[in-house]
Amino acid sequence: MKKISLLGATGSIGTQTLEVLRAHPEKLSLVALSLGRNISLGLSIINEFKPKLVCVLEQEDAKNLQELAPSGTKIIFGEEGLVEVATYHEADTVVNAVIGSVGLLPTLAAIRERKNVAIANKETLVTAGHLVMGEANKYGVNLLPVDSEHSAIFQCLNGDRNNDISRLILTASGGSFRDKTREELQGVTIEDALNHPNWSMGAKITIDSATMMNKGLEVIEAHWLFNMPYEKIDVLLHKESIIHSLVEFSDNSVLAQLGTPDMKVPIQYALTYPNRYNVENSEQLQLWQLGTLHFEKMDVNRFKCLDFAFEAGRIGGTMPTVLNAANEIAVDRFLKGEISFLAIEELIERAMEMHNVLPHPSLELIQEVDQKTRERVRSLQI
Amino acid sequence: MKKISLLGATGSIGTQTLEVLRAHPEKLSLVALSLGRNISLGLSIINEFKPKLVCVLEQEDAKNLQELAPSGTKIIFGEEGLVEVATYHEADTVVNAVIGSVGLLPTLAAIRERKNVAIANKETLVTAGHLVMGEANKYGVNLLPVDSEHSAIFQCLNGDRNNDISRLILTASGGSFRDKTREELQGVTIEDALNHPNWSMGAKITIDSATMMNKGLEVIEAHWLFNMPYEKIDVLLHKESIIHSLVEFSDNSVLAQLGTPDMKVPIQYALTYPNRYNVENSEQLQLWQLGTLHFEKMDVNRFKCLDFAFEAGRIGGTMPTVLNAANEIAVDRFLKGEISFLAIEELIERAMEMHNVLPHPSLELIQEVDQKTRERVRSLQI
Repeated sequence: MKKISLLGATGSIGTQTLEVLRAHPEKLSLVALSLGRNISLGLSIINEFKPKLVCVLEQEDAKNLQELAPSGTKIIFGEEGLVEVATYHEADTVVNAVIGSVGLLPTLAAIRERKNVAIANKETLVTAGHLVMGEANKYGVNLLPVDSEHSAIFQCLNGDRNNDISRLILTASGGSFRDKTREELQGVTIEDALNHPNWSMGAKITIDSATMMNKGLEVIEAHWLFNMPYEKIDVLLHKESIIHSLVEFSDNSVLAQLGTPDMKVPIQYALTYPNRYNVENSEQLQLWQLGTLHFEKMDVNRFKCLDFAFEAGRIGGTMPTVLNAANEIAVDRFLKGEISFLAIEELIERAMEMHNVLPHPSLELIQEVDQKTRERVRSLQI
Repeated sequence: MKKISLLGATGSIGTQTLEVLRAHPEKLSLVALSLGRNISLGLSIINEFKPKLVCVLEQEDAKNLQELAPSGTKIIFGEEGLVEVATYHEADTVVNAVIGSVGLLPTLAAIRERKNVAIANKETLVTAGHLVMGEANKYGVNLLPVDSEHSAIFQCLNGDRNNDISRLILTASGGSFRDKTREELQGVTIEDALNHPNWSMGAKITIDSATMMNKGLEVIEAHWLFNMPYEKIDVLLHKESIIHSLVEFSDNSVLAQLGTPDMKVPIQYALTYPNRYNVENSEQLQLWQLGTLHFEKMDVNRFKCLDFAFEAGRIGGTMPTVLNAANEIAVDRFLKGEISFLAIEELIERAMEMHNVLPHPSLELIQEVDQKTRERVRSLQI
């Protein structure tokens, strides 16, 4: 029996993780979880899974929830509470499915308690990959990717043949606007952007898919997870999202992982690795029913955010933190209707230009740069 | 340094194996080989690689070749000679690249001498899979697939997770006549049939591709190599031959191996497994250059030989031996201009109908059934 602590239980990855847990109660149990402000959904999850420890964002919510929750469930709150959930003594595996760089501290804390981490929160590795991988190596902890692309690569590798890899090829659907030119992007609305063709996901990641920043963050994540230099990471446009990613080896043999788009498959694999089990309600892939798969060369002029991400990754130091923080705020401003879609790129570009890179940043420095970048991008006129 | 004994050195797989050996002289050396009647090519191979033991088909050729060969090379001949080459004491790995069921005895002999066998000769497993796998298990010997399809599956598995496999999916290009209806197949010539769209191969296997018997033999081979029941083996039409085969797991995740069509890649992998090295002159796969990959459902009415193979495999016993022997003779008769292309199917069907299956055949019984089927199909009027 694996005992799971789930950070971000009410989000898209969180609720799909709960579906996986529900289907395999004899193999997986939920002992702790965190959620943000969705208290009503949180309460129904608590009543169903009866975790021993739950963290919410606000003190007031914690107080109210404690009165409604079963007596065996302790409710805590805030950033410190999140770390407590991530390090809960009964848990052996932490699923990090929170959104944004708030996932960093609990991930580091979980690793130091030698818990395996199933990581869906890509900002953690983007903003502090060197710290997270350093600690994971030091404490002998497995980082299990949940993103479909990284799970694909992880499945293709199925072991440690890193020296034989010549290229990681991440596939990208192209997002909501894959068929639009840059000119056509001028007038797009929030609703247009939230309408992803293949995957049903949260708002932030759907916008990141439309700007291609999601793929950029995944490139940086892949760099850290698989210890791969940026010149060995490629992105391939593949609009059907059936091939989730590929690995090319030194003999030009390529392995790929495929499937119908269903996040429950990589989530479950991260939780049951190296074993596989039936995934409830998942659809079998029949390539003859699809008939064709399409591939196009990625155009970094069309998708500038991907270019920014490669640049930030290559520069390293504090630059990926700036990329990520600027993106989080820019997307937030777009979703609030403050800026246009193309202004997301512009804000990120300006934040990166204005930043003086510092190498080998400590956690404190990363947090400082993250905070300053947020303030700066929040107030930039556009 | 791996020491190789190569059966069938002058054939298509044989000469490509030599290319691999030539590229990695520090890792692979050729200590013994066999060839048939192509003495002039054989002599140049002997002069280049200086093997210690060489077997040819005919006694007369052996005598002549012994006079021309370097003094360190001993020339022998015939079926017994082939077994001697397969069991040569210095070799640790035998590449079985002979054509037809003549590959069976040397394979069994090599396994009993605990040599690893890289197997390109599919008829060996088709005709006597239960004996070969039984001996391989008994002597703890690895059977390393060389066929691109089985190498693909082997690479996707990269280990022993057999219990998690829900389906093996072999891809088929469709061969020379993939776009022809059965009516259009009436008038096709030998030259048409030998013109394979993707792979450059020997005559017998090219005809087998056109009839789809090649895929049928591969299905039976996959059944034995991967211990997979026939109901878990599917065939998928994929005309580009870029995805070489796929494995579906119990969680509906699918792994695939891809590459430009180049037999040197699976040959080399079988010889250097589990390590990978650069393959000389092999072409990198760029999916965006291809643009699209196509898939179609396999039609067993259009490709009857595939149906026969599944049927023979499911019936088991001596039936796969009949399938294979009938096919070898029917293809031979087609290549000699004695029968039409569609008569290949008819001869195989009639041979299977006329046969009374015997279960769990011994080697002697297999050889007897093989011989009788050949005689019968050789003389059947059509």
